[in-house]
Amino acid sequence: MNDKRYIDVDWKNGMRIRFDYNNMLAENVGSAGITEADIMNMRPRFTKAVENMRNKRKSMEWRELPYQNKDLIEDIKQTAKYIQENYDAFVVFGIGGSALGPIAVHTALNNLRYNELDKQLRKTPKFYVEDNIDPERIRSLFQVIDPKRTMFNVITKSGNTPETMAQMLIITDVLKKALGSGFSKNLIATTDELKGNLIKIASEYGIKTYYIPSGVGGRFSELCPVGLLPAAVCGIDIEELLAGAAYMDSIIESSDSNPAYMFGALSVIAYEKGNNISVMMPYADSLKYIADWYAQLWAESLGKRLDNDNKQVFCGQTPVKALGVTDQHSQIQLYTEGGFDKVVTFIKVDRFREEVTIPHELKQYEDISYLCGHTLNELISAELFGTEYAISKSGHLNNMLILSEVNAFTIGQLLYFFEVATAFAGELLNINAFDQPGVEEGKNVAYALLNRKGYEDKLKELQSIKPKDEKYIK
Amino acid sequence: MNDKRYIDVDWKNGMRIRFDYNNMLAENVGSAGITEADIMNMRPRFTKAVENMRNKRKSMEWRELPYQNKDLIEDIKQTAKYIQENYDAFVVFGIGGSALGPIAVHTALNNLRYNELDKQLRKTPKFYVEDNIDPERIRSLFQVIDPKRTMFNVITKSGNTPETMAQMLIITDVLKKALGSGFSKNLIATTDELKGNLIKIASEYGIKTYYIPSGVGGRFSELCPVGLLPAAVCGIDIEELLAGAAYMDSIIESSDSNPAYMFGALSVIAYEKGNNISVMMPYADSLKYIADWYAQLWAESLGKRLDNDNKQVFCGQTPVKALGVTDQHSQIQLYTEGGFDKVVTFIKVDRFREEVTIPHELKQYEDISYLCGHTLNELISAELFGTEYAISKSGHLNNMLILSEVNAFTIGQLLYFFEVATAFAGELLNINAFDQPGVEEGKNVAYALLNRKGYEDKLKELQSIKPKDEKYIK
Repeated sequence: MNDKRYIDVDWKNGMRIRFDYNNMLAENVGSAGITEADIMNMRPRFTKAVENMRNKRKSMEWRELPYQNKDLIEDIKQTAKYIQENYDAFVVFGIGGSALGPIAVHTALNNLRYNELDKQLRKTPKFYVEDNIDPERIRSLFQVIDPKRTMFNVITKSGNTPETMAQMLIITDVLKKALGSGFSKNLIATTDELKGNLIKIASEYGIKTYYIPSGVGGRFSELCPVGLLPAAVCGIDIEELLAGAAYMDSIIESSDSNPAYMFGALSVIAYEKGNNISVMMPYADSLKYIADWYAQLWAESLGKRLDNDNKQVFCGQTPVKALGVTDQHSQIQLYTEGGFDKVVTFIKVDRFREEVTIPHELKQYEDISYLCGHTLNELISAELFGTEYAISKSGHLNNMLILSEVNAFTIGQLLYFFEVATAFAGELLNINAFDQPGVEEGKNVAYALLNRKGYEDKLKELQSIKPKDEKYIK
Repeated sequence: MNDKRYIDVDWKNGMRIRFDYNNMLAENVGSAGITEADIMNMRPRFTKAVENMRNKRKSMEWRELPYQNKDLIEDIKQTAKYIQENYDAFVVFGIGGSALGPIAVHTALNNLRYNELDKQLRKTPKFYVEDNIDPERIRSLFQVIDPKRTMFNVITKSGNTPETMAQMLIITDVLKKALGSGFSKNLIATTDELKGNLIKIASEYGIKTYYIPSGVGGRFSELCPVGLLPAAVCGIDIEELLAGAAYMDSIIESSDSNPAYMFGALSVIAYEKGNNISVMMPYADSLKYIADWYAQLWAESLGKRLDNDNKQVFCGQTPVKALGVTDQHSQIQLYTEGGFDKVVTFIKVDRFREEVTIPHELKQYEDISYLCGHTLNELISAELFGTEYAISKSGHLNNMLILSEVNAFTIGQLLYFFEVATAFAGELLNINAFDQPGVEEGKNVAYALLNRKGYEDKLKELQSIKPKDEKYIK
């Protein structure tokens, strides 16, 4: 960590994420754009939402994560160091909010082929986030790791998530066979301090444990031990990550027309004007999984049937993950020529961590010689500009987040920015952004099918389902 | 290859992909569903589209790819064998249609951690598809391969794709430094036989070349050398892949109400009833990138401003990629409780290539003991059933593709199924599914910014753009 960063205001300001929404406005994209009148209409709700965010801050425990207890940070760093020195691999067993943050931050800040690097280049343990229960995937995991030399971090807030607990049972069996009674030294539990089975198991077997604060939901948990331990194990500077989040918090608190509130408000206006799709399109491979993390945050927080007054609203933009420049060759045809039903958010990186010059080769071929001497960095930048220009010219809404660099400080800002923007959009929509009642039905059916005790009525309900009509199966 | 498969009709029929659309219908999902009247209204267009598909078959050259020249197949197999015996890695440089098919087929049919496996387990060369120009990504590629021991397959139909040709210039420089004048033996070109620069370069330097048939567009090219060579190098049985595609062709030709036409027609009806989103959600990690391949096919083919009568239609469903069970913890809240604006297509696998039993561990914890003794396979199956049930019960449209197994024969079927379904949807929508005029504007701007000859007027246009208003950048 470079201590200078905490005192050098110029450096911080140079790293400030900017949100450019010129191309959300009718004056720039034409009739599908947001007008002065749209903004005037939103104003009373905006004012109310600002007030709500202020009043509810205490209940939004995730908002205080940037300012965590120094002892906890120290403990995480010590544990990470111990793992780095004693293990070859680190595996996260978790799903949803327990997986998407660790994947996004790791991909952003480490080598893009981290696990394939020679150990000398990589330095820190191999890293896996296992967020599915596909039997082919778990078999393949055991083909590339040695469980004896691997630390397994089981992450579930509730302590009962069936996918994660199934993985916990499998790994307990594997480790007992490999290590006998000492199996628990290859396990770390990250869970609620009081609720669920994982905390009880951890306490019975003496498994090292980190707590997920009770007021922090899965999709808002990346800046607690859920994300901090995996990041630290991979060599990421977690204090910089938190400093970035704190910096974004200070930006947000300093003005009502801050980037997060503006993103939330413009998204809601666009949504209510018929844009039911939100495309997140970073122009950097390192940020690819930020789009996945955002997709959960946005979908699960804002996709709600009921508003706070119990009125049916069937609310929510559908997030779409895209990657520049790659998806110019897949999605841009649709984005420029298709319906006026989406907002594209580009994420631009001003300075990559590498620069590659296209060499002066094959110059005799005039139709490609224009590339020679340019850098790939310039090519990406020109293509992003071209795509933004084409989408705007065709009258489709778009905006842009600009990162000077991808580093722990800017990623911390970015995460916190999206979290607050999402919460703010929830206030504007008058919905509860922090629950997920819609996932219960499917879970209960699965429990019933597995003959879990207490789900006998649901099983009866399933037995009465009309069978599929074969004439509609081709 | 198991020759039995070509004669054993029972085996083939057992491997037949089924398309279940019960939950597209109002009788099963309620008021958002498709009614008898919707289907009656569609009938004349359906009949016309069937006729068009018949009349245009000759111009749709990709439809004949399952029946390719045996000499070509033999040549590809020989080349693959030579590469397997003489190289440690195989790198595809391509983007869009030159990348998504190779990635999807490789992921479907090989180990999920193929590159990380010990060479003895993997047997065939490491495999990389480089479909972006991010400088950090290309640097990391050279950290994990030895160019001298790597075969590079440069794929571009036009022979001019700037991203791919930039990669071609970079690799030419690297290989010349490593191998001197023999650099071209580590290169294979896959491109149009007559047009573009790549074919000229290949001929000047004696680079081994495969042709992309002139009537086969990028997104319909997986079953030509674009996809067949990479698949063969990774040990995939390409004749099985083609046999599967041919089998699907026979199914399609045997009835007008075949699965591909039904998928196309129901998608169009749903789209015209307001479902502007198409979610592709396989319940298997191996099929994850089939969703990416589909996303290009569907978006680029059907996302069109003009119909065949030059009327502005701003047409096209936006594809969304999801993965079961993972995204139950990310997207299902929205899919069950959000708007009636999407069709979810599940892809179900009846038999995985592995079975993993959840061991009888920690049985003292009653809330998780219901898992013990079940397989992960059963857990996935129960969760898919639960999710399908919950989404249907909440009144949202969904359908399901069912694969008995994931193997080269079923993947061949699946690819051909989607290609025909897409073409058929294009006929129903009266649009040209085979062009992509909307990508030109962005490309031209990028060329202008890179000072390419012939784009001086575009550069002037750019110089007259109103600068961004700083007040809309937060």
